[in-house]
Amino acid sequence: MKNQNQEHQLKRTMISEVSKQMSTQVMLCGWVHRIRKLKYVTFVILRDRTGLIQCVLEPDIEVGLNLNPETVVSVTGRVVEGKNTFGNYEIVVSSIEVLNTSEALLPIKVNAETLDIQLDTLLEHRVLGLRHPKELAIFKIQSRIAQYFAAFLNGEGFMEIHTPKLVKEGAEGGANVFKLDYFGETAFLAQSPQFYKQMTVIAGFERVYEVGSVFRAETHSTSRHLNEYVSLDFEMAFIKDEYELMALETRLLRYIIEALEIGEKEELERLGVVLPIVPTHIPHMKLSEAIKILKMHYGKTERDGDLDPEGEKLICEYVLKETGSEFLFLTHYPQRKRPMYTMPCGTDETHSFDLLFRGLEITTGGCRIHRYEALIANMKIKGLNPDTYASYLESFKYGAPPHGGLAIGLERFTAQLLGFSNVRRTSLFPRDGQRLVP
Amino acid sequence: MKNQNQEHQLKRTMISEVSKQMSTQVMLCGWVHRIRKLKYVTFVILRDRTGLIQCVLEPDIEVGLNLNPETVVSVTGRVVEGKNTFGNYEIVVSSIEVLNTSEALLPIKVNAETLDIQLDTLLEHRVLGLRHPKELAIFKIQSRIAQYFAAFLNGEGFMEIHTPKLVKEGAEGGANVFKLDYFGETAFLAQSPQFYKQMTVIAGFERVYEVGSVFRAETHSTSRHLNEYVSLDFEMAFIKDEYELMALETRLLRYIIEALEIGEKEELERLGVVLPIVPTHIPHMKLSEAIKILKMHYGKTERDGDLDPEGEKLICEYVLKETGSEFLFLTHYPQRKRPMYTMPCGTDETHSFDLLFRGLEITTGGCRIHRYEALIANMKIKGLNPDTYASYLESFKYGAPPHGGLAIGLERFTAQLLGFSNVRRTSLFPRDGQRLVP
Repeated sequence: MKNQNQEHQLKRTMISEVSKQMSTQVMLCGWVHRIRKLKYVTFVILRDRTGLIQCVLEPDIEVGLNLNPETVVSVTGRVVEGKNTFGNYEIVVSSIEVLNTSEALLPIKVNAETLDIQLDTLLEHRVLGLRHPKELAIFKIQSRIAQYFAAFLNGEGFMEIHTPKLVKEGAEGGANVFKLDYFGETAFLAQSPQFYKQMTVIAGFERVYEVGSVFRAETHSTSRHLNEYVSLDFEMAFIKDEYELMALETRLLRYIIEALEIGEKEELERLGVVLPIVPTHIPHMKLSEAIKILKMHYGKTERDGDLDPEGEKLICEYVLKETGSEFLFLTHYPQRKRPMYTMPCGTDETHSFDLLFRGLEITTGGCRIHRYEALIANMKIKGLNPDTYASYLESFKYGAPPHGGLAIGLERFTAQLLGFSNVRRTSLFPRDGQRLVP
Repeated sequence: MKNQNQEHQLKRTMISEVSKQMSTQVMLCGWVHRIRKLKYVTFVILRDRTGLIQCVLEPDIEVGLNLNPETVVSVTGRVVEGKNTFGNYEIVVSSIEVLNTSEALLPIKVNAETLDIQLDTLLEHRVLGLRHPKELAIFKIQSRIAQYFAAFLNGEGFMEIHTPKLVKEGAEGGANVFKLDYFGETAFLAQSPQFYKQMTVIAGFERVYEVGSVFRAETHSTSRHLNEYVSLDFEMAFIKDEYELMALETRLLRYIIEALEIGEKEELERLGVVLPIVPTHIPHMKLSEAIKILKMHYGKTERDGDLDPEGEKLICEYVLKETGSEFLFLTHYPQRKRPMYTMPCGTDETHSFDLLFRGLEITTGGCRIHRYEALIANMKIKGLNPDTYASYLESFKYGAPPHGGLAIGLERFTAQLLGFSNVRRTSLFPRDGQRLVP
C-alpha cells in the first residue's frame, strides 16, 4: 500500500515523452483507447493528447476494474522496448487506477482507424467524436493557423484588438443580422469587426488585427456557411492601394503554410494532407475578366455580375491549369456588390478584392473610403441613412488616414487547406439553422 | 514636380526609426499633433503610432495647406540633430502633403499632456480620445497581456480554442443572460466559455484556453462591471486539486508581469505605472477565515457569507500589511455561492477560489465535478433541470477526466494593474446600460 502511494506521487509523463524514460517507472494518464484480453495478458492501448501507447497488464491487475473503451485511467509501470503498432515502447503496468468510468456502449467508435460516420452523427456526439486523433488533429492545426496569423502580423507592427460584438451600428446595411434587446434598445450581433477595426486604425493604432467571433443570420444552409464563425481580420493605415493588402496577405499565407509545415508535420501526416504552395505572386485578374473567361472557355453566363459557387470552382480550375497556382485574387468588384465603406474605382468598380483558394472564396478585402463627405455620399447611394451610423461617421471628421483591410474565415480556410468539403468539419461546435447544441 | 514624385516613392519611415536615418531624406506619415507658427518658421509636431517628432517648415511650404491639429499628412524631409521636447532629432521638411483634413474644432484636446476630461466625454468621443499617447499605451499593454497569457499557456502544453457565443445551454442557472431569437429557437449569449472549455477538455484536448468575448446582462452599473468583456479562460485535465490551478496561475501572472516589464517598459513609463511583484507563493486563506479577520480587525460583518467590495478591499489591505503581497487567494467558497459544476468539498464548501488583486476580484476558478451522476445531483440541488443541459451532460457519460480551470477578466486585470478605478478606462468600446455606441 505504501509502495502504491509512492507511485501515485510520480509526476505525470505524457505519452510523447515516454521514449526519454526508458527502463524507469512512469505514471501516465489518459483514456482506454482499445483493450485486448488474451489468456495470460491484457493489452490496453492508452491515449492522451500527445498520442497512443501499448500497456501490458497481467490479468490480476485489472480484476474488478471494469475497463471499457474511454474509461479514464492513471497507469503506473515501467517503460520497456517493444515494437508494436503504436511505437517502439510499451509499459509493463504495475498498477492502474480508474479515475472515471465510461458507459460501455459508445455512439461513436472512437478507436476506429477512421470515423466512418454521417456528419450529423459526428456533430450530435461532437465531444466524443473529437477524441478521435484525426479530429483532434484538425483543431490543433486550426488553432495554429490563428496563432501564426497573429504572429506574422505582430512582426509587421500590427496590434491585436478586442472589439465589441454587441453593436448598434454594425448592421452594414445587410439583413442577415441577429437582433436582441439590450436594456430596452435594439442591439445587433456584429457581422464583422469592420467598423471597429476601422475606428481603431483611425484612432491612431494604424495597424490592427482581431481573431474573434462574427455572427451571420443567413437562413440558407450550405456547406460553406456557418451562422457563427471565427474571423481573422486585419486593417491598416497609410496604404496606397489594394495591391499592398494583397501583397501582405500573400506573405501572410506563405508564413502560415511554412510554419504549419514545420510545426504541424505530424498532424498533417495523420490527416494525409499536402499543403499548397503559395506563389510569391498570387495571380490576379479583374472580376469582369474572370466572367469573360468563364463565358469564353466554359460557356458559362454569370448572373448578377458576380461568380456563383460553380463559377468560383471553374475559374480556379482555369488558373491552376494556366499558372499552377491554387490561389487567385479577383479584383475590381462592382460597387453594387460591395458595402458602402468600399473605396470606389472609376464609375462602377471598387478598390476591392476576393481571394479564391481551391474553388472557394476565403478572403474579402479592399480599400475603404476615408473622407467623411465621400462616405456619407456613398451611404446615400446605397439607400442608407447616415444618421444611423453617427458614431462610426464621427471618427471620419477628425483626420482619418487612407486605409484598408481584409478578413479570412478561419473555418473555411482550414477546410480548404485540409480538404474538407463541408465547413462544419472544421468548426468545433458549428452553428447553423439546425444546430444550437452542443 | 519630378523631384516631388521621387520623394513620394520613398518608403515610409516610422518616427521611432528616424534615429537610424541621420542626414538622409525620409518620408513620414501621421497626424499633426501640434503646430507653432513663428515669423520665419513653422514647427509641426508629427505623431504616428510609434511616437512624436518635431518637423521644421519654412513658411512657404505650408501655404494653402490649412493644417489643423489632427490633419493627416505625409511629410518628406531630411533628418537632422535637434534637441527638443520630443527627442534628439528633427525633420527639415522639403514637402508636405495633406492626406485628409480634420475639423478645426476638436471635442477633445488630443495634444494635451494629460486628458483632463470627464469619463463620459472621453467615451463619447472614444476614437478621438484613443489618439492620446497615454490612451494608446493602455491598449498596447492590454493587447500584450492577452498575448502573454496565450504564450505562457502554449508553453505549458495548452491549446487555444474558439467556442461558440450563441448557445442554448449556456445560462449556467443565472438570470443575467442576453436572449435572442435563433431561427425560431431561444438562444443565449454565452456568459462564459465554461461549458465548452470543459467539453473540449473532456474531448481529449486536456488543456485548453480561450481569449474571447463574454456577455453579462447585469442591470446594475458599477465601476467594476461591463455587460461585455474579454475573458481569459483556461481549463485543464488530470489535476489533483485547486492548489494546482492556483500554482499555475501564480506562474502565469509572474510570466505576464515580467514580460510586460521588458516589452512594455516605455508604455508603462508613459503611464507612470510600477508593476506589482507577484510572490512565488501568493498567500491564500479560506473565505471563512477572511470573514473572521474582517470581523476581528475591522469590526465588519459580512452579509450572505461572502465579501462585499469593501470587504475585498479591507482583506487585501490586511494581507498586504501582514505579508507584503498585493495578491490574495481566497478558497473554499460555500456551495450556495458557486455554480452547479463546482466540485464540493465536505458538506458546505467547494474546491474553488477567487484571486483578489489590490482589493478587487480578478479571477474565479476551481475544480469541476467530473462524474455524471454527481453533476446531475448537484444540478437538482441547485433547482436546475438536467434536461436543459442534455448535450453538456452527455460529455460526462463517456469518461470525463478530473479537471478544473479559471477565468481572468482582461479589462479588470488591466485596470488594477495600471491603477484605474473604473474598468471602462480599459475597455476599447465599453458596453454598459448607457453605452451601445460607439
